[in-house]
Amino acid sequence: MNKQAVIGPGLLGGSIALAARRYASWRVSIWARREEAVAELRHRGIGDEASTDLAAVAEDADLVVLCIPIGAMPEVAAGLAPVISPGAVVTDVGSVKARVVAELEPIFRARGHFVGSHPMAGSDQAGLSAAKADLFGGSVCIVTPHEEANGEAIARVAAFWRTLGCRVRELTPEAHDETVALVSHLPHLVAAALVNCVQAQDPGALEFVGPGFRDTTRVAGGPPDMWTEILNSNRPAVLKSAEAMIAKLREFMTLLERQSAGDTLSMNEFLTHARTERERLRASH
Amino acid sequence: MNKQAVIGPGLLGGSIALAARRYASWRVSIWARREEAVAELRHRGIGDEASTDLAAVAEDADLVVLCIPIGAMPEVAAGLAPVISPGAVVTDVGSVKARVVAELEPIFRARGHFVGSHPMAGSDQAGLSAAKADLFGGSVCIVTPHEEANGEAIARVAAFWRTLGCRVRELTPEAHDETVALVSHLPHLVAAALVNCVQAQDPGALEFVGPGFRDTTRVAGGPPDMWTEILNSNRPAVLKSAEAMIAKLREFMTLLERQSAGDTLSMNEFLTHARTERERLRASH
Repeated sequence: MNKQAVIGPGLLGGSIALAARRYASWRVSIWARREEAVAELRHRGIGDEASTDLAAVAEDADLVVLCIPIGAMPEVAAGLAPVISPGAVVTDVGSVKARVVAELEPIFRARGHFVGSHPMAGSDQAGLSAAKADLFGGSVCIVTPHEEANGEAIARVAAFWRTLGCRVRELTPEAHDETVALVSHLPHLVAAALVNCVQAQDPGALEFVGPGFRDTTRVAGGPPDMWTEILNSNRPAVLKSAEAMIAKLREFMTLLERQSAGDTLSMNEFLTHARTERERLRASH
Repeated sequence: MNKQAVIGPGLLGGSIALAARRYASWRVSIWARREEAVAELRHRGIGDEASTDLAAVAEDADLVVLCIPIGAMPEVAAGLAPVISPGAVVTDVGSVKARVVAELEPIFRARGHFVGSHPMAGSDQAGLSAAKADLFGGSVCIVTPHEEANGEAIARVAAFWRTLGCRVRELTPEAHDETVALVSHLPHLVAAALVNCVQAQDPGALEFVGPGFRDTTRVAGGPPDMWTEILNSNRPAVLKSAEAMIAKLREFMTLLERQSAGDTLSMNEFLTHARTERERLRASH
């Protein structure tokens, strides 16, 4: 029986443990920094073992999954490297990959095989209480092997995510960061900016929101500490995507102004283009 | 027994007819421009009667609800005015109110009582096929009496929407338009701009979208013709809200750039503020 070590008992770590029990027969050992979290894991029966002892959790694990904030990874990885099996495969769930891979790959170079990954699943709810076995079902997981990554380790990480229900894609760490700046970080900052914009313009207007506003801003409910770290870790790509978004809003404004001059076609085309691409997403899911 | 005339068999008109049957005992008569739509209404058993004859549908109705595109309202209203009961109350479901009220109020000044309204319910799906009795349940309906609106007519329109499950609020037509520019029109153009932005920056990135991008852009799937008309009818307020949104995105970019100089607090505050306001919406619903 394979053993899997989950490092960190949050939404993703907890969901991996629940999914592993439902979809596979791995033995799951979970590390938490705090004794209270260990007690909660045991109380809820999540995972086969839970401990604050990193060595006990990582010992004999075939796969180690880091499910902690990006900023906490190097320190925990340095604690892990001496205690994992020499052939263990290590991956993570960080939302930014160039920084994470650059920091973790050297730590595991002498022992184990590191391959980064980013499951594009989540929720505006954070923490173990929101964890669920089907969090990953149908979602995309981007595996981001660096240039010298071990081929077998890549395959094992990909197989792991597939078992949990993900569709696996491969990108370089750098291409990953450009992509998620557009499809994940930009929506987050747009949602946050939209809430703050409406609130600043007219706080009373928030009394009148319908389902459209709720959907468009849902991700703004995500944890600020985590998102501050994510956005900061991917700063150049995020700034570039925000600049492109502003340019698109300006383009729209020009088209709307042009409507008063009788050109009703261009704005319709802008909206039709958006709908066509959006419908394609619906069809693909 | 009260008779209600629904003018237009789309998502909103169809849903009103279905809701009226479930939640009230009104007789519902539906007007459609096309015989095919009348046939579909009869086939699906929506409403008590359906016809392309405006006079037959409106005759004896206590309440007439215009559920047609804003641009089509004046012509249909001109046809309605001579055939409605002298004391009939007329309302509409248009997403923009200053223009609609200015156009329709004079038409019904001699006969009937016009009071505008805007149920903040809908879907990215348009048309009768998406109609459902519970479309309005729990949503806000803004009733927008003009200065000389008849008090009893306002009360009847409000009671009508309450019966369908709406929470009713009152705003002047102008205040309504400012408010929906922020909470409805801005989210729509932001969603459309976000889809077009990502597609223009990297079409392949759309392969990697997760639930966050899907939620943030859902409303971009709405019908372009309808939205072109809505946004154009509320042009000044929409342009103002888009300008405010761009300013918020710039504010965010400044905060993100400042992070590199070691100020990690300001961006966290921006995101925390957005989350606090967003959580309040969740609590209120």
